[in-house]
Amino acid sequence: MPHRLTLLERVRGEVSRSRHVPMLAIAGDSASGKTTLTRGLVEALGSDQITSMCTDDYHRYDRSERKELPFTALHPECNYLEIMEQHLQLLTLGQPILKPVYSHSHGTLDRPTLLTPSDFVIVEGLFPLYSKLSRACFDVTVFLDPPEEVRRTWKIKRDTTQRGYTKEQVVQDLDRREPESQAYIRPQRTHADIVIRFKPASNEDGSQTMNAEILLRPTIAHPDLTDVLGSDTREAIHLKLIRDDDGKPVDALHVHGGARSELSKSVEEVIWHHLGLDQPVPAAIGQISPGVRSEPLAIAQLVLLYHLITAATS
Amino acid sequence: MPHRLTLLERVRGEVSRSRHVPMLAIAGDSASGKTTLTRGLVEALGSDQITSMCTDDYHRYDRSERKELPFTALHPECNYLEIMEQHLQLLTLGQPILKPVYSHSHGTLDRPTLLTPSDFVIVEGLFPLYSKLSRACFDVTVFLDPPEEVRRTWKIKRDTTQRGYTKEQVVQDLDRREPESQAYIRPQRTHADIVIRFKPASNEDGSQTMNAEILLRPTIAHPDLTDVLGSDTREAIHLKLIRDDDGKPVDALHVHGGARSELSKSVEEVIWHHLGLDQPVPAAIGQISPGVRSEPLAIAQLVLLYHLITAATS
Repeated sequence: MPHRLTLLERVRGEVSRSRHVPMLAIAGDSASGKTTLTRGLVEALGSDQITSMCTDDYHRYDRSERKELPFTALHPECNYLEIMEQHLQLLTLGQPILKPVYSHSHGTLDRPTLLTPSDFVIVEGLFPLYSKLSRACFDVTVFLDPPEEVRRTWKIKRDTTQRGYTKEQVVQDLDRREPESQAYIRPQRTHADIVIRFKPASNEDGSQTMNAEILLRPTIAHPDLTDVLGSDTREAIHLKLIRDDDGKPVDALHVHGGARSELSKSVEEVIWHHLGLDQPVPAAIGQISPGVRSEPLAIAQLVLLYHLITAATS
Repeated sequence: MPHRLTLLERVRGEVSRSRHVPMLAIAGDSASGKTTLTRGLVEALGSDQITSMCTDDYHRYDRSERKELPFTALHPECNYLEIMEQHLQLLTLGQPILKPVYSHSHGTLDRPTLLTPSDFVIVEGLFPLYSKLSRACFDVTVFLDPPEEVRRTWKIKRDTTQRGYTKEQVVQDLDRREPESQAYIRPQRTHADIVIRFKPASNEDGSQTMNAEILLRPTIAHPDLTDVLGSDTREAIHLKLIRDDDGKPVDALHVHGGARSELSKSVEEVIWHHLGLDQPVPAAIGQISPGVRSEPLAIAQLVLLYHLITAATS
């Protein structure tokens, strides 16, 4: 009944008043690095400018209820995906939402909280790219795709130190989730504008560094990186035209964690200045944990900041 | 940014797919009879056909937090009214909401629940007629307006028996709420299509009955009651053209609780058959509590059912 829609729109002046809030989706399996990637972006611009949320809050069942169910939290049925879609639409139109709250510490569904979108919104979680409608809410979409053995290591470390599980429980959980990861989470990779794969590599001296492969798909316009892709910076970063897993052409930006720090930093400065921001690169960019930095993480974050800021001004 | 709105609408086919869910608002102060009026309507049509909700669920603070605040739950600031408006809009467009939950038994804000509108929605509470936007969501709006001393008696009875308060606490609460009742709740009376005032009267034999005065404002088309307003039914029901408190003309339907039961029932049957429903008047209509009936309540409920069903078919 369009009449009704028109009436409501007239009352709230929706079309004229609504603004477009640039939104970034960071999808990926459990412990794929979503929170680390998000945290640096939020700290870089400030939480007054970026609102972030996690789609785990849309769990339909609490931890004890899930124990009785034949599927895990990775199953669409285990989440209020229709409500997630509705809330994403409201946020990108600048409207507040009363967001449900899932407590990872207690495994409980708690009282909801008011979330008002600020200048930018980052939505990270298991499902932001699951449906066509949710994808339509984003200006830029990312899928985090670490090698599976790396992700398992990260998940065991996090869940045993921060979420009160034993190693055996986490391994069992990973195995139980595997069919649903395959069916519902990993297929979202194909819908991302950017696929980020952090993977460890051995240096010549035997130490380990974390490199990043950042696939820049031709679905959106990426930053012009010409001036950081010369032979003098090749040790830190290089771009290669490859075929993706599905055979489609894609630009693969390789960022080398073992490069000299000053070289990586100069690359970061150049990308940062592309954003037209007249200040040094914030310290939060590239920070894995207090005191621990990763230049590939920094460069991935700067590319995402570029897209958010471009979406705001275009 | 209309572009964005268009994109989302295209993906979800909003305008073409959205349906209009007839919505009834029942506003009124605490213990004014909202739940009793609502319950009969829901039981009459069945909860698979009518979805009801209470706007108390939009309380922003729990009971212990409210103790620290300079206002009561009757203050707009004490409620997520913007979210209530958003949810009313979604419901009337046939969309589900993740509704917050306020527990009156524990005074806590609990995990939200999914509410999917069925054929009709009734929204009862303190604030459904508070803003222009929320009013625009309803097809018919009611304000319950019992005499203040009657409402106080009802509130003391309910809150001491069902909500664990002492009589002194309830009286103190009523006094504390009075300025906010006056400022925020009673002004909603002016925005209702129908104002219902249940008031006790003494019968000739000294017993008490509850009469109803139902103001039918010319803001919507009311049922044609010609065939129940003859001299033979005058003992049970009569209509009088009066001036409302603000001087505006209004039809006042007087329903006499002391009339012979068979006469009241025949009036109810006539209104019920106006609805085109080929079945007896459901037993839930007019029921105050198990075994306790009120014919004025029944007639008020039938008038409201008429409006809901008319809104669905017009």
